[in-house]
Amino acid sequence: MIQEAIVTTVNSTGDPHIAPMGIHVKEDKFVILPFKPCTTLNNIMETRTAVINYCDDVRVFAGCLTGRYDWPLQKADHVNCHYLEAALSHCELDIERIEDDEVRPMIFCKARHTVNHRPFKGFNRAQFAVIEAAILVSRLHMLPWEKIEAELEYLHIGLEKTAGENEKEAWRWLMAVIEDYKHEVIQA
Amino acid sequence: MIQEAIVTTVNSTGDPHIAPMGIHVKEDKFVILPFKPCTTLNNIMETRTAVINYCDDVRVFAGCLTGRYDWPLQKADHVNCHYLEAALSHCELDIERIEDDEVRPMIFCKARHTVNHRPFKGFNRAQFAVIEAAILVSRLHMLPWEKIEAELEYLHIGLEKTAGENEKEAWRWLMAVIEDYKHEVIQA
Repeated sequence: MIQEAIVTTVNSTGDPHIAPMGIHVKEDKFVILPFKPCTTLNNIMETRTAVINYCDDVRVFAGCLTGRYDWPLQKADHVNCHYLEAALSHCELDIERIEDDEVRPMIFCKARHTVNHRPFKGFNRAQFAVIEAAILVSRLHMLPWEKIEAELEYLHIGLEKTAGENEKEAWRWLMAVIEDYKHEVIQA
Repeated sequence: MIQEAIVTTVNSTGDPHIAPMGIHVKEDKFVILPFKPCTTLNNIMETRTAVINYCDDVRVFAGCLTGRYDWPLQKADHVNCHYLEAALSHCELDIERIEDDEVRPMIFCKARHTVNHRPFKGFNRAQFAVIEAAILVSRLHMLPWEKIEAELEYLHIGLEKTAGENEKEAWRWLMAVIEDYKHEVIQA
């Protein structure tokens, strides 16, 4: 099972980094699969720690894909790292082993400490639309333009019907990137 | 903002009923809009109480649309009703007023008591695929078959990549109903 979450890490001088990731989950075991090269992987290699943040503010996902990284953090309880203030819950990890790979190393982790900050508020179709659009944005150069357009058209239906302000703002950030891509690459 | 959740109600003799609903949310105020006729509306008229269950086990959503209503319940704390044992969180409601309508009456509610049972586990694309497919199943007779087929094909991509066992089971229940509909209505 793959959960979309925000991974927080730190480097050896304590600088935090946040990144959206699809995490493979089996009970209290996790596998993080970052693409090389990336700061999350470098940080985990350096400091052997990470936190998974379960966050329903989709602006954090869209923000990380559109150059908006400045989301408030708090010190983690049991590992030398941080968690997202916006997280509904977070899980502090022990890194068990790293299997290297040229493209996507596998980082095997185990939950050390989970904190339940705020109640889950149910499924929101607009949040799903933003997550799917964020995945599209992360793969723009790999996908045919017709597929991108058709998927966005479909996702926009659920967005329009069910979004709150956060979802609308996140969607706007993503659509601005897609518009730029369209002008630069497709219409060039 | 509209959240997809499970509403639990009871009638005047105490029989519980559960139903998936899209609920309009603004801070601690909610509007439930059941279609007439339905048990949720009748029960709320009779007993003036309801509970919103925020549940990430999508089998409950798919189950309610495929004749599987037997999900374990617990007595609510502050209202004479029940909550879903599987809920990550639930909210016990005061019913403030009901605006009648021939198609969809509006039930205005306020949160009286919210309980945070278990931590949110992040976004799962398969769970959203199931929620979207459940919405399709609830509208089968209103939608052109080509639209249903195209949407299911799209949703199946996210499902296949990210589902756990619950999501696969829920998807199978929904697809069985869609297959029956296809054989009875489309190919008839």
